[in-house]
Amino acid sequence: MPKVTFLPANKSIEALPGSSLLEAAGAAGVKAETPCGGTGLCRKCLVRVKSGKAVPGGTLPEKLANEGYILLCRAKLGEEPLEILIPESTEKGKFTKAAEDLLLVDESLLPKSLSPLVQKTEISVSAPAPMDGLSDYDRLEKAFSPIGEMKLPLGVIKKLPETLREKNGNVSVVYSDEDKSITRITSEDSKYYGIAVDLGTTTVAVLLVDLETGEIIDSGTEYNAQISCGLDVISRINYARTPHRLEELRDKALSTINNITKKLAESSGIDINGICCASVAGNTVMTHLLLGIIPEYIRLDPYTPAVYSLPPVKAKETGLLINPESPVYIAPSVGSYMGGDITSGLLCTPLAADPEELNLFMDIGTNGEIVLGNKDFLIGCACSAGPAFEGGGIQKGMRASAGAIESVIVGDDGNIAELSVIGGGKPAGICGSGIISLIAELLRKGYLDPAGKLIRDKNCPYVKTEGRSASYYITDDVYITEADIENLIRAKAAVFSACRVLLSKVELDFGDLSKMYIAGGFGRYLNIKDARTIGLIPYLPDDRFVFLGNSSASGAYMTLISKEHRNRESDIAGKMTYMDLSIVPEYFDEYVSAMFLPHTDLKLFLK
Amino acid sequence: MPKVTFLPANKSIEALPGSSLLEAAGAAGVKAETPCGGTGLCRKCLVRVKSGKAVPGGTLPEKLANEGYILLCRAKLGEEPLEILIPESTEKGKFTKAAEDLLLVDESLLPKSLSPLVQKTEISVSAPAPMDGLSDYDRLEKAFSPIGEMKLPLGVIKKLPETLREKNGNVSVVYSDEDKSITRITSEDSKYYGIAVDLGTTTVAVLLVDLETGEIIDSGTEYNAQISCGLDVISRINYARTPHRLEELRDKALSTINNITKKLAESSGIDINGICCASVAGNTVMTHLLLGIIPEYIRLDPYTPAVYSLPPVKAKETGLLINPESPVYIAPSVGSYMGGDITSGLLCTPLAADPEELNLFMDIGTNGEIVLGNKDFLIGCACSAGPAFEGGGIQKGMRASAGAIESVIVGDDGNIAELSVIGGGKPAGICGSGIISLIAELLRKGYLDPAGKLIRDKNCPYVKTEGRSASYYITDDVYITEADIENLIRAKAAVFSACRVLLSKVELDFGDLSKMYIAGGFGRYLNIKDARTIGLIPYLPDDRFVFLGNSSASGAYMTLISKEHRNRESDIAGKMTYMDLSIVPEYFDEYVSAMFLPHTDLKLFLK
Repeated sequence: MPKVTFLPANKSIEALPGSSLLEAAGAAGVKAETPCGGTGLCRKCLVRVKSGKAVPGGTLPEKLANEGYILLCRAKLGEEPLEILIPESTEKGKFTKAAEDLLLVDESLLPKSLSPLVQKTEISVSAPAPMDGLSDYDRLEKAFSPIGEMKLPLGVIKKLPETLREKNGNVSVVYSDEDKSITRITSEDSKYYGIAVDLGTTTVAVLLVDLETGEIIDSGTEYNAQISCGLDVISRINYARTPHRLEELRDKALSTINNITKKLAESSGIDINGICCASVAGNTVMTHLLLGIIPEYIRLDPYTPAVYSLPPVKAKETGLLINPESPVYIAPSVGSYMGGDITSGLLCTPLAADPEELNLFMDIGTNGEIVLGNKDFLIGCACSAGPAFEGGGIQKGMRASAGAIESVIVGDDGNIAELSVIGGGKPAGICGSGIISLIAELLRKGYLDPAGKLIRDKNCPYVKTEGRSASYYITDDVYITEADIENLIRAKAAVFSACRVLLSKVELDFGDLSKMYIAGGFGRYLNIKDARTIGLIPYLPDDRFVFLGNSSASGAYMTLISKEHRNRESDIAGKMTYMDLSIVPEYFDEYVSAMFLPHTDLKLFLK
Repeated sequence: MPKVTFLPANKSIEALPGSSLLEAAGAAGVKAETPCGGTGLCRKCLVRVKSGKAVPGGTLPEKLANEGYILLCRAKLGEEPLEILIPESTEKGKFTKAAEDLLLVDESLLPKSLSPLVQKTEISVSAPAPMDGLSDYDRLEKAFSPIGEMKLPLGVIKKLPETLREKNGNVSVVYSDEDKSITRITSEDSKYYGIAVDLGTTTVAVLLVDLETGEIIDSGTEYNAQISCGLDVISRINYARTPHRLEELRDKALSTINNITKKLAESSGIDINGICCASVAGNTVMTHLLLGIIPEYIRLDPYTPAVYSLPPVKAKETGLLINPESPVYIAPSVGSYMGGDITSGLLCTPLAADPEELNLFMDIGTNGEIVLGNKDFLIGCACSAGPAFEGGGIQKGMRASAGAIESVIVGDDGNIAELSVIGGGKPAGICGSGIISLIAELLRKGYLDPAGKLIRDKNCPYVKTEGRSASYYITDDVYITEADIENLIRAKAAVFSACRVLLSKVELDFGDLSKMYIAGGFGRYLNIKDARTIGLIPYLPDDRFVFLGNSSASGAYMTLISKEHRNRESDIAGKMTYMDLSIVPEYFDEYVSAMFLPHTDLKLFLK
């Protein structure tokens, strides 16, 4: 029997040719996430063949397949021994690198060629000559003139005399393709970089990109330091009501981005001044706070933000710690609660490429944003799901980090038959996907009714009542209350009914959807079956669901390196109609119908 | 006899109608400067009639005459009592306000209409409306669109939401006429201001200007704090050779300008953020240092500066403490030693208005710059006069401040018959005009020979010899040595021979000059007779000399408020040919000829 070895853990097992590699991994004691249930959809179990040949399965972009990537859940052992490298993130669980989410995007939507926010060119500036009346500035201008009319900021002029004389006027010039403003001049032909930033309310992701190749060198994630000033955008707006506190929030967003960037630059051995542009995607409130713009009127009727779409600003104006003259592209917003994270995320879907077919995009987090459309129209809305999907407002809830229960199987006698804890070990709490998994299992096994009440008359020892309320105990310490379940029901009802209202606005239904794209940190780890059981998503064939992970970061990467994608994003923002659900009367009726598990209209969830 | 009262000193005297008011002032014990010798040329004795009527004399711009100004040296007492207000600066002596130097400029050269670097307009922005898809930015853009395509910097966007809502969208917008970038938006119709700055190597002058009227509200002067890092531009360049010290120099220039500006704003009760633009004139090295640009290559062959002409930069980029979004206009330079102070100064002469006649402009200071031309050509050169004109390099030399001897009359027996000390009291030293006065007197009275040697065989008790050198004692403590005299001869020779070389280049001579414009802090207080005696200026009828004082500051004022003058300055810079004297062989011969008092060619100084 051929042997398969899993690296870097270096655990081996022998198995029959044709065996499932996922099963082999499990037998070898190597953990791999398969949130989509091993259907090959979420691509979370992507691994790389180091030596030998596996029998591939599922579909992967050609480029990835050529590089030796396979889906652990779909690939099979061949005749020969195999060495498989499991990426750290795949093994660790929930915290994948933002960069890897790009693998979830259909290849046809990715940039075909490089046209980053800044370009680089080598030019030769003539030597200073006596009495020719030409300053260093004048001679540079002359040498640059075939490209266009240069704009040279003071910050670059300051060192120009030295730079021009270091290598006899041979210099490397980084400039904005848009307005020909020069970002950097060096006498060394140094590499140049950009960063793509997803500024999330909760988590901030930064991708460090080599602009010569478009390659993502590294990426990093940290919690947004603004969390200490409020968990959601409304509480941040409230916090920002004095200039001092607005400045504090600005500073916290900045320092989060800057910290990640510094670490990435250091670990990659890159001069931070060589980072010459940035693309930032964030919701409308995050964008305002990053730029220090008063966000107050976003939360007040008629909910008008200061700005939707800005021309690129300079890094030095924003406080980003990259080259100070770098253009910073900010993804355009569409509404007070339909931000640049969504226009950016849409770039990961065919909606950015004017498809014939109807598609729906949903970004699930504390806020849920939903966009529906095809080549003819684009309509979007936002709803407040609350923090339940992220473990917030749940008694034993926690974020999807080490110690969190992320999935369960309930046995026939109501006990916990199987338990998956992030990072292994003793469970400390339960995260969003764990709650969904538990609720779905309790429903399926008959310990929960459609109204979200635990069944008391089964005498299940894990269902404990206290007064009029009951709780289900997973372990002695970790439990879920009926109030927790209700919070989750509210969250899923908000999202599901928003989808329904959007569809009904265009007189269509779920069945008309070609694809349903699910994004958000949470989105990537959603178990389709569980989500359908609780009524978060309708019944549709599995292959209609596409998980995108952090599509906002992926979109920011695309706008960083591709002018076509910046134009697409601008088109999306211009095309989209924003529907304010608070003034749509049907929304409340839909919401009430969705307050059941799965719904009052059961046929939506049946084949 | 009618009484004349001098205010604010409130000193009175009775005199006959037709009496000289200058003499009346002297008799009343009121001091007034008349450096031009009471010829009405320098306008230094300009005073204002508060009540009564004087008989005017000399020529004054109509506007000034209508406002009651008279020249004390030329006006006469009439039949009725008179009250005359003597400006503080006239009484104090050397330190006139930069603003008053504008009075020396021919009215025809001053701006006829206002077109400052920034404009102000009132606009009405529509109210935020639900679901119209327009952010605050979008609605402002719409309201501004009749003026042009606005550029709204982040600094202004930050507070836009509040500003728009304070007065229902009625706002006052200050913007650059050039590129429509917005400097300031307020809901109050607040006034707006600008500053004109003369950044001199030694002295910095700032004029605070009301941009609605063009009126100079106040002006102030301070020594350039860079003096502690070197007295002349070459020593400053040397000092700036490390980035840290370059930054130090930048900071010192900035803090000097900012200090004056703050004081002016405070004493005028003006919000410093209401200062929305600046025009700065300085020599090439000063401009580099203010902007933090490496100046090193200005002093190294082939003497190429980093930049001659810059598009306006923003105040926040320069560090100027006015409204951070203000455009800062920098007067263009022409050569390494022909800076924006000269292009700016030329605006005070007909050379900026393409005259038929030949004119010569000279700005005398540590560096002397000379420009010659008419409508067909403009040629300029610079020479190093050294610090002697400012009392530097002279044993008992000092600046023209309190305690400095500024003029003398030598008696027939070689004693000091009359002595004028700035601020009165005991002399502490001698300033540039004092040295010129003393040398001229000693020459005239026969105690000095044309080679600059004191005559020893007259047994004058004030001429004391020590070894091979002799000195002339004005008082027991203040004297002038033959080495001092030689320094002054070198200085005047440098300037005079530069003028000769320029003229000879175009095959002309002094007699062909329509006017000779003399500028520089020193220039205003030059006594024509003395200057001619020592050979600093040639013989020409008195009315061919025009004193301009600080023409750099006056020019900066004009470019601040007039687009026409900005264009003129740009034209001047483009038109001027810069001649490097160090590579002109005749210069040395001319210089040697000028090393006599007055010159080897005596006929240049005779009628």
